[in-house]
Amino acid sequence: MTLYYNKAPSARTRVRRHHERGSYERETIEAILDEGLVGHLAFAVDGQPYAIPMLYARNGHELYLHGSPASRLLRGAIDGVPLCLTVTLTDGLVLARSAFRHSVNYRSVVALGAGRAITDREEKLEAMRMLVDQIVPGRSQDARGPNDVELKATTMVAMTITEASAKVRSGPPIDGEEDLGIPAWAGVLPLALAPGVAIPDEFCAAGIPDYIAAYERPRSGA
Amino acid sequence: MTLYYNKAPSARTRVRRHHERGSYERETIEAILDEGLVGHLAFAVDGQPYAIPMLYARNGHELYLHGSPASRLLRGAIDGVPLCLTVTLTDGLVLARSAFRHSVNYRSVVALGAGRAITDREEKLEAMRMLVDQIVPGRSQDARGPNDVELKATTMVAMTITEASAKVRSGPPIDGEEDLGIPAWAGVLPLALAPGVAIPDEFCAAGIPDYIAAYERPRSGA
Repeated sequence: MTLYYNKAPSARTRVRRHHERGSYERETIEAILDEGLVGHLAFAVDGQPYAIPMLYARNGHELYLHGSPASRLLRGAIDGVPLCLTVTLTDGLVLARSAFRHSVNYRSVVALGAGRAITDREEKLEAMRMLVDQIVPGRSQDARGPNDVELKATTMVAMTITEASAKVRSGPPIDGEEDLGIPAWAGVLPLALAPGVAIPDEFCAAGIPDYIAAYERPRSGA
Repeated sequence: MTLYYNKAPSARTRVRRHHERGSYERETIEAILDEGLVGHLAFAVDGQPYAIPMLYARNGHELYLHGSPASRLLRGAIDGVPLCLTVTLTDGLVLARSAFRHSVNYRSVVALGAGRAITDREEKLEAMRMLVDQIVPGRSQDARGPNDVELKATTMVAMTITEASAKVRSGPPIDGEEDLGIPAWAGVLPLALAPGVAIPDEFCAAGIPDYIAAYERPRSGA
């Protein structure tokens, strides 16, 4: 049986600080990954760690990453080095009466795993399609799919998630009782990645499709 | 003389893929760091890299990070292990006529350095104040500052940036001429982290301050 996400977290993914915010539930983890747009891929080269922003798509327990065949990062990723993809959604600013109790409402996932190159043509085309649709659901039906030159010019990596954890903070500030008389405003300022007005390019004669006019990230109930 | 940011980038921070998007200018790098809210700190433990979302504040060429004294991450950070803090602003979705030319408009900074614990009381108080004001400019004037117990319960780390690079993509999609006849909509859908309606907590009697009612991240001209 494939372990999708470890229900008994290892020392590597167990949430230690504010452990009450930790979750190892598949549904929670997948909802955050599916809502996210840009993840940060951590890897180390010669003892120096890096975090690099990356688009990704999720297919079951695999995360698809893409880039140039000349990318050191992706070459490393397909050599099986340990990877970590972290996705963070910033949901709000939490303003308490004391500076100490200030916080941020967020949902994040830390996913560990290793990558392999996708070499099968059909699997690669499907992964590329899913990547486009992770960013803009429905877009792959309108855009021209990759030709042979473009296929060759793209490395697709499938990172199998071996373990993952989520961390979630939500709700109002939690001030100590002794601070409740402080006259400062206290509460939450919600934040979300919001679309503006779409800007057609200079050659565009088409009307704005629904998936742009009504664009939003898929939201879970959280 | 202190090198703030290396003008001649090393192999560690030189932008290789899409090098035309790379920048090593101090002003560009600092504007991105100052607009950002949550960074991702990369570090490695026993060969496994991690990226963890972190609040931060910038003071010149130092980045302030905070957390619990029990945090493995921060204990490592003050032991001088190599760190990387990456900040990414997602500015828009770039929809081309071909799937291959789809992209994202973004501004990111990769900052490398090493950390030290801030032990001086005045420096620590100032770093904590700056952290609050990085998140909500002006907030430190209204919130109660840390007392001795809270000071002890917080580790403040100053990460000195030894080198950094920025990477910026902006503007419309760039389709090949042969694709301009494809009838798909093409252009940019701007994205930004936008505030919603502030939610006071159940004990709050104060009116909403201007820094919440008109909240926005400091924007550079970029």
